[in-house]
Amino acid sequence: MHSPRVLLLVACAVFALHACFTASTRVRADEGMWLPNAFPSAEVGKKYGFTPDQAWLDHVRLASARLAQGCSGSFVSPDGLVMTNHHCAHECIEQLSSPKRDYVATGFYAKTQAEELKCPALEINQLVSIEDVSQRMAAALANKSGQAYSDAKKAEQAQLEKACATSDDLRCEVVELWEGARHHLYKYQRFQDVRLVFAPELAIAFFGGDPDNFNFPRYDLDVSFLRIYSNGKPAKLEHYFPFSQSGAQDNQLTFTSGHPGHTSRDLSVPELLFERRVSLPRRLQNLAELRGQLVEFGRRGPEQARFSRGLLFGVENSLKAFKGRFQALMDGALIEQKRARDKTLRIKLGADKRPGYSTAFASIEKAVAKLEEISDYYDLLERGRAFPGDLFGIARTLVRGAEELPKPNQSRLPEYTDSSLPGLKQELFSPAPIHPELEQLTLRFGLTKLREILGADDPIVKKVLGKKSPEKLAQELVRGSTLANVAIRKQLFEGGKAAVDASKDPLIALAKLIDGDARAVRKRYEDEIESVLEKAHEAIATVRFETYGTSVYPDATFTLRYSYGTVKGWIERGKPIPPFTNVRGAFERETGEDPFALPKSWLNARAKLNLDTPFNFTSTNDIVGGNSGSPVIDKNAQIVGLIFDGNLPSLGGDYGFEEKNNRAVAVHSASILEALRVVYNATRIADELRAK
Amino acid sequence: MHSPRVLLLVACAVFALHACFTASTRVRADEGMWLPNAFPSAEVGKKYGFTPDQAWLDHVRLASARLAQGCSGSFVSPDGLVMTNHHCAHECIEQLSSPKRDYVATGFYAKTQAEELKCPALEINQLVSIEDVSQRMAAALANKSGQAYSDAKKAEQAQLEKACATSDDLRCEVVELWEGARHHLYKYQRFQDVRLVFAPELAIAFFGGDPDNFNFPRYDLDVSFLRIYSNGKPAKLEHYFPFSQSGAQDNQLTFTSGHPGHTSRDLSVPELLFERRVSLPRRLQNLAELRGQLVEFGRRGPEQARFSRGLLFGVENSLKAFKGRFQALMDGALIEQKRARDKTLRIKLGADKRPGYSTAFASIEKAVAKLEEISDYYDLLERGRAFPGDLFGIARTLVRGAEELPKPNQSRLPEYTDSSLPGLKQELFSPAPIHPELEQLTLRFGLTKLREILGADDPIVKKVLGKKSPEKLAQELVRGSTLANVAIRKQLFEGGKAAVDASKDPLIALAKLIDGDARAVRKRYEDEIESVLEKAHEAIATVRFETYGTSVYPDATFTLRYSYGTVKGWIERGKPIPPFTNVRGAFERETGEDPFALPKSWLNARAKLNLDTPFNFTSTNDIVGGNSGSPVIDKNAQIVGLIFDGNLPSLGGDYGFEEKNNRAVAVHSASILEALRVVYNATRIADELRAK
Repeated sequence: MHSPRVLLLVACAVFALHACFTASTRVRADEGMWLPNAFPSAEVGKKYGFTPDQAWLDHVRLASARLAQGCSGSFVSPDGLVMTNHHCAHECIEQLSSPKRDYVATGFYAKTQAEELKCPALEINQLVSIEDVSQRMAAALANKSGQAYSDAKKAEQAQLEKACATSDDLRCEVVELWEGARHHLYKYQRFQDVRLVFAPELAIAFFGGDPDNFNFPRYDLDVSFLRIYSNGKPAKLEHYFPFSQSGAQDNQLTFTSGHPGHTSRDLSVPELLFERRVSLPRRLQNLAELRGQLVEFGRRGPEQARFSRGLLFGVENSLKAFKGRFQALMDGALIEQKRARDKTLRIKLGADKRPGYSTAFASIEKAVAKLEEISDYYDLLERGRAFPGDLFGIARTLVRGAEELPKPNQSRLPEYTDSSLPGLKQELFSPAPIHPELEQLTLRFGLTKLREILGADDPIVKKVLGKKSPEKLAQELVRGSTLANVAIRKQLFEGGKAAVDASKDPLIALAKLIDGDARAVRKRYEDEIESVLEKAHEAIATVRFETYGTSVYPDATFTLRYSYGTVKGWIERGKPIPPFTNVRGAFERETGEDPFALPKSWLNARAKLNLDTPFNFTSTNDIVGGNSGSPVIDKNAQIVGLIFDGNLPSLGGDYGFEEKNNRAVAVHSASILEALRVVYNATRIADELRAK
Repeated sequence: MHSPRVLLLVACAVFALHACFTASTRVRADEGMWLPNAFPSAEVGKKYGFTPDQAWLDHVRLASARLAQGCSGSFVSPDGLVMTNHHCAHECIEQLSSPKRDYVATGFYAKTQAEELKCPALEINQLVSIEDVSQRMAAALANKSGQAYSDAKKAEQAQLEKACATSDDLRCEVVELWEGARHHLYKYQRFQDVRLVFAPELAIAFFGGDPDNFNFPRYDLDVSFLRIYSNGKPAKLEHYFPFSQSGAQDNQLTFTSGHPGHTSRDLSVPELLFERRVSLPRRLQNLAELRGQLVEFGRRGPEQARFSRGLLFGVENSLKAFKGRFQALMDGALIEQKRARDKTLRIKLGADKRPGYSTAFASIEKAVAKLEEISDYYDLLERGRAFPGDLFGIARTLVRGAEELPKPNQSRLPEYTDSSLPGLKQELFSPAPIHPELEQLTLRFGLTKLREILGADDPIVKKVLGKKSPEKLAQELVRGSTLANVAIRKQLFEGGKAAVDASKDPLIALAKLIDGDARAVRKRYEDEIESVLEKAHEAIATVRFETYGTSVYPDATFTLRYSYGTVKGWIERGKPIPPFTNVRGAFERETGEDPFALPKSWLNARAKLNLDTPFNFTSTNDIVGGNSGSPVIDKNAQIVGLIFDGNLPSLGGDYGFEEKNNRAVAVHSASILEALRVVYNATRIADELRAK
């Protein structure tokens, strides 16, 4: 899962997704993203002979770190040292770089504490307490529905959070668990002074690039070290994870503590079948084709290769992510498991007298049938699949902003409410360069798909294309538009409806032309599908929680979760994939050509390195995007590894956990120590990690 | 199904496919590709009130035509006039063209009979009789197995065919039906003097191009007229189809008589699930990505666009074909129907004492599990997915030819036996130009897939790529190869092993390098999968024929089959698709830009045309690739239309017939007459069609 942010993005499905519904089974797999205050210790004890007690669980919680940007981390010394992935600190490393000192390429090491560099935009959180506020929330919401319900909810949450956050260095959040069946108040210690301590070169952090992404065997040193400071000094920590002597061993019991971002394990079978039959194949083919165009586009020249690289990376990453999810759904086992779960719930709900409960599954089926009818229109027109690229997005924001902003706050589309405006403006006025050649490619691609999917006779296709080919129209739109100019965007935004209406920009005209259709299909989606699904899932979730309580875990919420598992390989194409690689392997697969070119530091250190040092390993721990940077610890709460990826089957983790093939991929703790000492002479850090 | 030849090509799956197994059901859909001598007349009578008698069936047979290249046609006048698709006569039209007279672009019309032009390579067959020779075959094969069995089979077939073909103008073929449960001897009258009478412009024959291919609504005049000659004069025909007065009507009972090329309706559920889970998604993504590269490649310049167009057309056509097949398998109904069929057969076979019968389904399951293990290797190495393009194919043929040809005939790989050599040489020494730029693209694409699919650590990947990137290796291979030169190919082929071994050509070296691995995986595939599946399917087919006899139709064999159905639209995205388009629609969708540019002849004729004339229509007739050019007739055996395509769901017809959505797409007879008279002033032909 290189870049969990990307993963979190691609995880955003057609549905709004809900709480968790994995059926409780007697012989449980190593499944689960467990709450720190509802960990199945007895079960782990029975299966593995080690029963974590409350002290252990609390210690792990306090030694775990959350990176607000969407990653996990851990405290690894009493002096505020934080370990996470290289790709989680990538933004900081890039921001600290300059054309003259490219730390992404060269790596970074602060030989002394004084040389540690402050990350401009990193915040690290430590979860200091959890309070169950379910009763207060329930009381506040009793007998309320509709707008009153959601207003009361917001108000009560805000009040709870405000009362909790007694100082600026605290962050409090009410977390909705099990689809709102429970509410917990999470109190975090905030650390906003975060400094970069160590990062290796990108070439070893992401050795193998896209070919190796989500694959194993693997040879990546995807690690970075940060340090939290308090009042200008390294923060003193009572709770941290020391490094284990040996690191991960075959078959060893391992735990992760991290922040899985999002899962869809509660989706009902009709929804999953829609994903499998329509939604995922469509995206896979779309991404594959776009990948083909981008790869070939990059061959036009080095400049084109450079500015299309970011998009290509995102496309390739999503392609693999969706592939893994698709395969998980195609493998009969997962669907069968979900069928069994649904069957039980259908029976329970069928007999439930509360309004909407007995028809919950039927209304999901109806909503999915409706989704099948409109999803092409919804995807193409409202979700922008027909109009990809930056320029159209800008045009739509301007057109809709002019419509929405004059309305009272509560009547606007959510992305135009006052609280959304800062983010919207940041994006709208971003000075990031826009490349017309690439805009033409993506827009042409989208317009071709519009015609291909809806057919040449569709009224919307006719309206958009007129007598033009997608090729010609895309060219005219991009060449004729001035929206790449930030000043013009500002002027149109500030000028409001009058300015936008007066604009002759062809992309503004296109955004206006289709806005009625796009809004109409959005409204149908929200009214006839999204809200129906939400309501049905609420009923199911309620019954489920009433039945199983905390013996099942809630869907991921980007809050702290523990997983347990063992170090283990798997079988692929009939061949066993051993769970470990070693440092020798990296040299064996080195070719000197990107993405298999080792950095000089490694080539120079080869003779001194212990080539038998384990490099990466796989385990059955249940993780998803957001878990990047999670520590892998043993029962003594010592670091044995660092999560940075999952194998292809792990991508199905969005829908469910399949112990046979789903594997977390981690950097072995021994290779971190070996690299720090031998490759980077970073003895200051290596010593700090071994301190007791 | 633009170009049934292409469809026939893409229909070639990982499996060798077998006879037909559609379960007999009481309420039958309009399903079936029925033998002319085993038509379910009673059933049709019961359902539609018209019971074709033997005279009707024989008349239809004798009025039907087969184009040996892979298409269907019909006799439409007593003077040897033949109607088929434009795309079925495309090769002849092209061959008769010259740089100065491009009949593909301009169309062709012989104002007088004397102007009709002889097609250089067209043969048309009329099925004059069918004889059941099952008993003779059975007697010849009794108590034989292995090599003796297959020798006796070949010998008996040859003898039957020879005794039947008493003159040069007869062609006789023993057809294996129901997986060999029955053998019929088909006797054809051959017509080798075939002349081009009329063809419209490609722009109207394939109006809508790829966006419209396999879609509906549709506006294509995909028709051509040929004439068979006998002794230099138009052949006189007793049996032919006159044109109906009105043409196809909504809900009308319609028949097709044509030559479906290939179907896989007998595949068992485990095989279908493999197609659905592994084989089709893999191809779809592969084709989508290659499509992306080719589209973008074509933008390098007009020359690149020109020489990559053929490959792009094939890729796009296959992409849609596979998409349709994939959707058919993803739609639960088809699989459920197959499950029911398998269940019945499993019970019957389970109790059968003949060797291998009771374990037939179990051995299919085992073979499919093995296929899952090796199919990546088999596809990449032996089926050439890792090495696409012409040059590697040539290199492999040379390397393998040098190995195989010195062996005794019966010990060679089948593609190198004496009987295969003429075809092999024709291809190997073809002077068709090879474009290095395109070869680099495809080879690079294949090598990238090789690494992506097997992983960078796979020994074969290491062996092939060494330290090189796919990019670099493809460039070196193509630049360094001289195999584009036909003379060098000849020299190496004729020089045999010594010459090939001495060659320094890098592609020859690559073909040699992987030949051992490729042969090894092929042997595993043939020994452990293909032969196991064949044997199991033989057992299943035998039991099936013993149970149902001719009440079920055999899988397609590119021999004459009848289908019945009705003119009908279908529902797509919740909206009804009406079964008819009219001529007005073509003008409405005309944009002046390819592929929606009408030819001048149509633009000029607009005012004179009856715009209400029905243009294309859909019906529930069960057709697949090979049916292109089939007449659509009413119960009076009058032409009401001309099959030229199927809708997307019809592509699932390879696996089964699904009446709800599967539609044949035909040119309406009225539009043919209207176009002949008004657009082309081809009154000579229009009159001939209306003659009684």
